[in-house]
Amino acid sequence: MKTQVAIIGSGPSGLLLGQLLHQQGIDNILLDRVSPAYILGRIRAGVIEQGFVGLMKEAGVAERMLREGEIHHEVDIAVHGDYHTINLTELTGGKSVTVYGQTEITHDLMEARTASGQLSFYEATNVKPHDMKSDKPFVTFEKDGETHRIDCDYIAGCDGSHGVCRAAIPKGILTEYERIYPFGWLGLLSDTPPVNYELIYVKSDEGFALCSKRSETRSRYYVQVPLDEKVENWSDDRFWDELKRRIPEDAANRLVTGPSIEKSIAPLRSFVVEPMQYGRLFLLGDAAHIVPPTGAKGLNLAASDVNTLYRILIKTYKEGRTDLTQRYSEIALRRVWNGVRFSWWMTNMLHHFYRDSIEDKIRDSELNFFLASEHRRRILAEQYVGLPYEDID
Amino acid sequence: MKTQVAIIGSGPSGLLLGQLLHQQGIDNILLDRVSPAYILGRIRAGVIEQGFVGLMKEAGVAERMLREGEIHHEVDIAVHGDYHTINLTELTGGKSVTVYGQTEITHDLMEARTASGQLSFYEATNVKPHDMKSDKPFVTFEKDGETHRIDCDYIAGCDGSHGVCRAAIPKGILTEYERIYPFGWLGLLSDTPPVNYELIYVKSDEGFALCSKRSETRSRYYVQVPLDEKVENWSDDRFWDELKRRIPEDAANRLVTGPSIEKSIAPLRSFVVEPMQYGRLFLLGDAAHIVPPTGAKGLNLAASDVNTLYRILIKTYKEGRTDLTQRYSEIALRRVWNGVRFSWWMTNMLHHFYRDSIEDKIRDSELNFFLASEHRRRILAEQYVGLPYEDID
Repeated sequence: MKTQVAIIGSGPSGLLLGQLLHQQGIDNILLDRVSPAYILGRIRAGVIEQGFVGLMKEAGVAERMLREGEIHHEVDIAVHGDYHTINLTELTGGKSVTVYGQTEITHDLMEARTASGQLSFYEATNVKPHDMKSDKPFVTFEKDGETHRIDCDYIAGCDGSHGVCRAAIPKGILTEYERIYPFGWLGLLSDTPPVNYELIYVKSDEGFALCSKRSETRSRYYVQVPLDEKVENWSDDRFWDELKRRIPEDAANRLVTGPSIEKSIAPLRSFVVEPMQYGRLFLLGDAAHIVPPTGAKGLNLAASDVNTLYRILIKTYKEGRTDLTQRYSEIALRRVWNGVRFSWWMTNMLHHFYRDSIEDKIRDSELNFFLASEHRRRILAEQYVGLPYEDID
Repeated sequence: MKTQVAIIGSGPSGLLLGQLLHQQGIDNILLDRVSPAYILGRIRAGVIEQGFVGLMKEAGVAERMLREGEIHHEVDIAVHGDYHTINLTELTGGKSVTVYGQTEITHDLMEARTASGQLSFYEATNVKPHDMKSDKPFVTFEKDGETHRIDCDYIAGCDGSHGVCRAAIPKGILTEYERIYPFGWLGLLSDTPPVNYELIYVKSDEGFALCSKRSETRSRYYVQVPLDEKVENWSDDRFWDELKRRIPEDAANRLVTGPSIEKSIAPLRSFVVEPMQYGRLFLLGDAAHIVPPTGAKGLNLAASDVNTLYRILIKTYKEGRTDLTQRYSEIALRRVWNGVRFSWWMTNMLHHFYRDSIEDKIRDSELNFFLASEHRRRILAEQYVGLPYEDID
């Protein structure tokens, strides 16, 4: 087989890239080692930056997102019981975020891909990128017992942190930057009305909590727990009690509890590899970087990489630019580091680090400082809604 | 002897407090273990916040400072050769800083104290605060072989990090917060014209540097060196070469070098004790906290403590308030932590940490982010000129 761009990984970034390229007449083939049903079964957050919404529009797949997604103009931060409202729209000159689940985005993108007729191979095994440093790279994979080969111009590695793309880059090329936090998030999903329309990020003496939502009838709550905590130790009742202890009193009083649909602990980690490419293999999203979920940047940074690569490929194919593809990593990383830093900053300021050090005092002082006046809250708001995508020229 | 406030330590904070109290008719006695000449021999920075200038005016000792001090409306930050000008005055609605040496301030305050006739004992040995938790504290000391006792209402501990006041507080009362940085500042003082009117803070691949000044004919330069570096290894020539390597090219080209008058290495450290009082003994300035010099907050935080204690004592003596003296620590610490955090932040963003970690990448990203637009530079500017003193009521 032959295509222009082979895309490995069919999460939202692989699918979005494929759809954007297709809209521009750039042919692509999508590969994934698992099934669409498996991918749609993943439960993920969905606080979407406007830039991401813009990309969905450009890809022609934003209709349901615009209809069903909730526009949020504010986010609340509660510190030891006191609310601080970050008025995103006022502070950023009109911007907002959209709450729309990652699963829904993936679903919409899969439907669009099917309709577009672009080729996809799910449950493809032994996927391998080859000759990435040459100008004739190719990908091999197995499907139903047969081995296939895709010759292509470029390979987009959208296959996550444990995928084959990053692993295919020879040792010694990538520098890894990592930080493991001493805590994780215990999350509970329930079919109960959310306690608040706006998201509430909570700092309390017992640690961080987050009140978020999937819809008007489905809530997603989180409480910070030590890294070695086990989900088996947390009955639904214990979770609800702990959540009530951390959130402001009025929220605790009106919280509607119910049985969990899902409950799990996710560790928190910051991770970046540099560079984000190896010849004609590009790494996007989780394949290149992981952020802690505080600040909701994981999916948005993946979209940012998609935007960077998409703009570069358009200029390469349509304008005959030959210099840009080799600059993908450099351009993508500038915005990636901003998102990694913002997630790090929010995580630092809002969590309990289980010790009493000068770092804790600095973090407390920083949160108080940045919440205390409007021009400082703007710093938080402009990053929460997402910094602008960089122009590529 | 009897007085209202016994002040231990005659650096700028002890002297300023004494002078302010005297202006309000509150009697005080000043003690120091060394001589005035020794104190005046210390070489220290002098970037003075407007709040501090205001206190000097209120104490009636600002005349020479206002005449000879340089008003600075800007500060430059050079990152890998590119200048970023922080226009302090525009960004803060009219504020500025005054460059005027700590030695000059001390000199002016000593003269004023002599003129005021308030009692001072220099070269007093074995100074000891007693009964701080009672309402009849006293101080004992020896001078010329005789032991003296001062009965007082309050004791102000202005005797620095190695002084007797903090050491006199029983074990278990104070919590110490500390961070040692893996580098120090090698400073050189020379009678050469400063390379620039404005101060230049420099981040370079070789590490931090600072171009500062004492006057139009006396310069003070610093370069970051590893913590274990020895001043003997640094000839004047080596210093000038290293400085030129770090500062922007135009500055290196016009730099006037000359023999050093003084050359020394100071380690960098963040340190705070909580609480900043023990009954009727109050800790001020270095006795309670040390900051790294990046951002020039050390002396200004001492003045901030003086302001807090002075306002509290006025309300206590003049308005009969009985609740405020026990709140000194709580009130003082809010502004102290802001200053400690700002010094920490500037130190982090501008120095080379001699490793290649995710923290370094975050610090680079943070500096780029905050320099990149006016509303973010305002965050830096408002702290550099000094946050407002808190109203006490």
